[in-house]
Amino acid sequence: MSDRPRKVLIVGGVAGGMSAATRLRRLDESAEIVVFERSWYVSFANCGLPYHVSGVIEDRQALLLQTPESLGRRFGIDVRVGHEVVSIDRDAKRVSVRDLNTDRITTESYDTLILSPGAAPFVPDIPGAERALTLRNIADVDKMVAAVGRRPHTAVVVGGGFIGIEVAENLQHLGIDVTVVEMADQLLAPLDPEMAAYVAQQLVDNGIEVLTGNEVVAIGEKTVTLGSGDELPADMVVMSIGVRPDSHLAKDAGLEVNGRGGIVVDEYQRTSDPDIFAVGDAAEKRDAVSGEAAMVPLAQTANRHGRLVADVIVGRRTTSKPVLGTAIVGVFGLMAASVGWNEKRLRAAGRNYRAIHAHPGSHAGYYPGSEALHLKLLVDADTDEILGAQAIGKDGADKRIDVIATAMRGGLKGADLADLELAYAPQFGSAKDPINMLGFIDDNVVNGQSELVQWHEVEAARKAGIPLVDVRTPGEFRRGHIPGSINLPVDELRNRLDEVPAGDLVITCQVGLRGHVAERILRQAGHQVRNLTGGYQTWSTATR
Amino acid sequence: MSDRPRKVLIVGGVAGGMSAATRLRRLDESAEIVVFERSWYVSFANCGLPYHVSGVIEDRQALLLQTPESLGRRFGIDVRVGHEVVSIDRDAKRVSVRDLNTDRITTESYDTLILSPGAAPFVPDIPGAERALTLRNIADVDKMVAAVGRRPHTAVVVGGGFIGIEVAENLQHLGIDVTVVEMADQLLAPLDPEMAAYVAQQLVDNGIEVLTGNEVVAIGEKTVTLGSGDELPADMVVMSIGVRPDSHLAKDAGLEVNGRGGIVVDEYQRTSDPDIFAVGDAAEKRDAVSGEAAMVPLAQTANRHGRLVADVIVGRRTTSKPVLGTAIVGVFGLMAASVGWNEKRLRAAGRNYRAIHAHPGSHAGYYPGSEALHLKLLVDADTDEILGAQAIGKDGADKRIDVIATAMRGGLKGADLADLELAYAPQFGSAKDPINMLGFIDDNVVNGQSELVQWHEVEAARKAGIPLVDVRTPGEFRRGHIPGSINLPVDELRNRLDEVPAGDLVITCQVGLRGHVAERILRQAGHQVRNLTGGYQTWSTATR
Ligand SMILES: Cc1cc2nc3c(=O)[nH]c(=O)nc-3n(C[C@H](O)[C@H](O)[C@H](O)COP(=O)(O)OP(=O)(O)OC[C@H]3O[C@@H](n4cnc5c(N)ncnc54)[C@H](O)[C@@H]3O)c2cc1C
Ligand SMILES: Cc1cc2nc3c(=O)[nH]c(=O)nc-3n(C[C@H](O)[C@H](O)[C@H](O)COP(=O)(O)OP(=O)(O)OC[C@H]3O[C@@H](n4cnc5c(N)ncnc54)[C@H](O)[C@@H]3O)c2cc1C
Ligand SMILES: CC(C)(COP(=O)(O)OP(=O)(O)OC[C@H]1O[C@@H](n2cnc3c(N)ncnc32)[C@H](O)[C@@H]1OP(=O)(O)O)[C@@H](O)C(=O)NCCC(=O)NCCS
Ligand SMILES: CC(C)(COP(=O)(O)OP(=O)(O)OC[C@H]1O[C@@H](n2cnc3c(N)ncnc32)[C@H](O)[C@@H]1OP(=O)(O)O)[C@@H](O)C(=O)NCCC(=O)NCCS
Repeated sequence: MSDRPRKVLIVGGVAGGMSAATRLRRLDESAEIVVFERSWYVSFANCGLPYHVSGVIEDRQALLLQTPESLGRRFGIDVRVGHEVVSIDRDAKRVSVRDLNTDRITTESYDTLILSPGAAPFVPDIPGAERALTLRNIADVDKMVAAVGRRPHTAVVVGGGFIGIEVAENLQHLGIDVTVVEMADQLLAPLDPEMAAYVAQQLVDNGIEVLTGNEVVAIGEKTVTLGSGDELPADMVVMSIGVRPDSHLAKDAGLEVNGRGGIVVDEYQRTSDPDIFAVGDAAEKRDAVSGEAAMVPLAQTANRHGRLVADVIVGRRTTSKPVLGTAIVGVFGLMAASVGWNEKRLRAAGRNYRAIHAHPGSHAGYYPGSEALHLKLLVDADTDEILGAQAIGKDGADKRIDVIATAMRGGLKGADLADLELAYAPQFGSAKDPINMLGFIDDNVVNGQSELVQWHEVEAARKAGIPLVDVRTPGEFRRGHIPGSINLPVDELRNRLDEVPAGDLVITCQVGLRGHVAERILRQAGHQVRNLTGGYQTWSTATR
Repeated sequence: MSDRPRKVLIVGGVAGGMSAATRLRRLDESAEIVVFERSWYVSFANCGLPYHVSGVIEDRQALLLQTPESLGRRFGIDVRVGHEVVSIDRDAKRVSVRDLNTDRITTESYDTLILSPGAAPFVPDIPGAERALTLRNIADVDKMVAAVGRRPHTAVVVGGGFIGIEVAENLQHLGIDVTVVEMADQLLAPLDPEMAAYVAQQLVDNGIEVLTGNEVVAIGEKTVTLGSGDELPADMVVMSIGVRPDSHLAKDAGLEVNGRGGIVVDEYQRTSDPDIFAVGDAAEKRDAVSGEAAMVPLAQTANRHGRLVADVIVGRRTTSKPVLGTAIVGVFGLMAASVGWNEKRLRAAGRNYRAIHAHPGSHAGYYPGSEALHLKLLVDADTDEILGAQAIGKDGADKRIDVIATAMRGGLKGADLADLELAYAPQFGSAKDPINMLGFIDDNVVNGQSELVQWHEVEAARKAGIPLVDVRTPGEFRRGHIPGSINLPVDELRNRLDEVPAGDLVITCQVGLRGHVAERILRQAGHQVRNLTGGYQTWSTATR
């Protein structure tokens, strides 16, 4: 490189792009840095958009974290909003840019080009689709705010993913009758169905209608039509069925793009052209569990990889880490969080995994305000490597997922969770933290003291004639139990061993804890026992 | 071992002892398990005691997690309350037990003995000490409840550690005028002074008087006398200046005991007698940072090691992990948490460490309710190994300490925190989580992009004639700044480089972020720069 300052162009001025720009400036005072952003805003808080629709985030200005002026002042970055990069001439190392004020196209040369064009909400090609609103940027949120200003009575949110759920909640806050329509059999694809069920329940409990296994096939003037032929009233329709990488620019320029439209990059976030980097929702990631290519459209990764690219450009040999895809959503005060792979995906990939369910309190039960946490841990059944986790709860679900994400990054095994020393006082945790409990349960399987059975295996066990023993109290049993189970309370078990059916057994209780105690008694009495992980709580939620 | 069931005696029926007992039963149905507890209660929630004094935990019964009957029913454990083990005959493998109902002494033989006698509040030998209340068990809390029932107007809590602070808060809730007297210059010894200052302020803001660097030398009928000679009104006096291992039984039996009274154990929690194990507050731990012996009287460890001993007894070769001492306390809605070593201790040990301060929001600033978190990270300056951390905040301090505790256990380095993928939605975190920020800051030092200076080094820099440049706005500067500093706002820096004093510089801003930006500009302009970590926020808190 000559003595001339490097010239870096950046496409997209939000999470990935602007993080690259600011970091690059900190690393290189002399670089010429130009950011092109086709919308009229940069550095905005995409993740806050749903909350502005309802006014939870009252001030629109709060969403605009920076302006071209503030970035110019502090970082000497040339930020051009209303400028769309329309093509890349890789040979000449030049981009063509349309000024959306004047429609004039100019060209700009680069030494290095960073692409962070993000992703676009996917809108299916169905009749009336043009009436559907989407939510990605400030223009979108302005439109949605205008739409709710027209006081709609009903809204249909198509898609029950993170953004769909956030939008549904915020519309409901405004007094709108909201229906969420989701094609899959469950909401929130990153969760397994028996975990997602808590989220659906929370929506229903807060007055939102949830239609899973349903599809919107047409949008009318005041209605939507479902695949079943049913019509739903819909003064407003929001489409949130996922995003597609906005990678046409890269593709047109002949950069390698994967089957899902993700720009292919190496561990330096370099595309197939060594002078062009890509980050954020448009770029391919490496999955931490499989090592394979993955699309993970999340803000942390976009920001992180933006920063990393700046480092690489100034010559630091630093590489991006495979992604865990840690994510969370708030649902009327409930948190639903996940990390890594879920059971569906592990099963589909034919992995030999183990799933553990637990339902401990968010903090010590004797201190007021403890709320049930619903936890699921997935580990490799051979190596005990942690593969993923899910947590649902009013309090502390975020904390437990963050701890597991950190454990995964640190290479801890499932049973190592038993030994984590987590901050305990009765307001904040338990002497045996929920995370430790997952570790204990896993440790018991690893060491052959326990064998687990999953809620979805109960039916097969029953068909195979294996007795199901419910060790809760008669009162609990009466209030609801798995069909075909017999009741033998754990505290009476030692005296009633003669009543226990001979041979293999499946044990259940409310959450798995008493089942574990019973399992230990019965194993030592010579039975081959499996304990239903998560107990009646998981089974009844899953089969509801 | 013969075919006869093993006979295991346990001294102490709470955290460590009862965890060993229940786990042992799960592992061995046939064992004879006898638990001796000299008080009238087992399995109680020590950690909840302060909250029962005020009625936050209203029901006394809630503190009693188990009874001898419930443990007998579920676990077939022979639990004897009101039974004190008074001596151990190691040769005969027999203990002598005093029945406190009858004062009769009997003996009981063992194959294995587990000691979990806990610790006793230390009460100094000062005049009137017998009037001081302490808080360790149910009898203590009953006494304290009776004492507050007599409607005291004033209380002096001697000792500003975790328990002292909890007791002070709960007495204040009852409308009592509370003064905390602490001999050291700060509250909460596990924290460094500039972090503990937030806790002191929180107490003061909630109407509690805090006297640090003060000592109670005598207790009168309605007063206490301080070392200074001053008298304080004190209808009630609570002594909470730490605990001493209750290890006299072990010592009398000739078991090895360390200088601080801790029963010496190996990594199997085995004492110097292979048939006797010790766990909990009375047992020595191995410190995770130094590998040295340590006393860490915390519930998690007691419970964990109790479980472990049961495993070892049935023949599993599992070992206890060195302890991090992760701890937390709630202070009128503020959390103060810590893990590992603090700066005081690292400095005293002559370790080459690096301290990092940051004051990020608990979640995205644009989402309502974000509260400042005060974070401190300590890493080895040579290896970047994480040595400790402290967090203060209304929300999410627990989560960040748990993440760092997990990172330490997983062997992650300071700079690895930059890459942790933590669950982000605006209600729960930031796209660059506070933990990531610590990682970024550390990464910058590791890679030579930044050099930090500590609040306690500012004075020396000033004396050495190194200019201190404050890069905040003039308005912020006017509202308070470090004496001797000059003001050059970061956003004007590039245009005013000629006004920057030549040579070495110390930079400061409010929290360190703008200082970092300024540092990068000035370094590239040829200055040798150090950025004040934590900025004016840390400096002003520390020097208040
Ligand atoms: C409603 C909503 C809620 C979300 N909530 C969360 C959450 O809670 N947690 C989380 O982790 N993530 C969340 N996300 C995802 C997160 O916002 C994205 O992962 C992140 O913004 C991706 O960063 P990026 O830089 O790749 O793309 P973006 O931030 O979308 O930025 C790309 C920018 O590039 C511009 N651009 C595209 N093409 C061109 C071109 N040719 N020329 C000029 N400019 C161009 C676009 O206008 C756009 O502004 C949410 C997203 C949305 C929409
Ligand atoms: C007020 C208070 C608040 C606390 N808060 C927290 C917190 O928030 N977080 C945290 O991690 N830790 C906390 N702790 C500490 C925690 O309770 C202890 O670390 C834990 O209980 C130690 O367990 P242990 O089994 O060693 O001792 P203990 O739980 O104290 O049990 C020891 C038992 O042994 C009995 N005993 C002793 N000698 C004999 C004998 N010779 N014969 C028969 N019985 C005997 C005693 O009567 C006692 O009941 C708190 C402690 C107190 C007192
Ligand atoms: C706003 C935006 C421009 C931030 O740029 P940024 O300056 O890189 O990031 P921050 O303001 O968070 O500051 C981080 C920097 O300050 C440093 N820093 C933070 N606190 C510090 C402290 N107390 N002491 C020293 N340095 C500190 C960090 O190390 C980092 O610098 P580095 O990258 O050189 O290591 C960019 O993130 C953006 O556009 N965000 C909005 C869009 C978005 O993220 N949307 C999706 C989520 S809603
Ligand atoms: C109450 C006390 C007797 C608990 O005994 P315990 O039975 O060992 O502990 P828990 O009730 O928490 O249950 C833990 C067991 O259930 C298992 N378990 C928990 N949830 C489970 C689930 N969903 N599925 C299967 N097993 C489960 C755990 O694996 C563990 O069993 P293991 O040790 O054999 O692996 C003991 O902890 C005690 O005395 N505590 C009070 C005193 C105290 O701790 N004070 C200080 C803090 S205030």
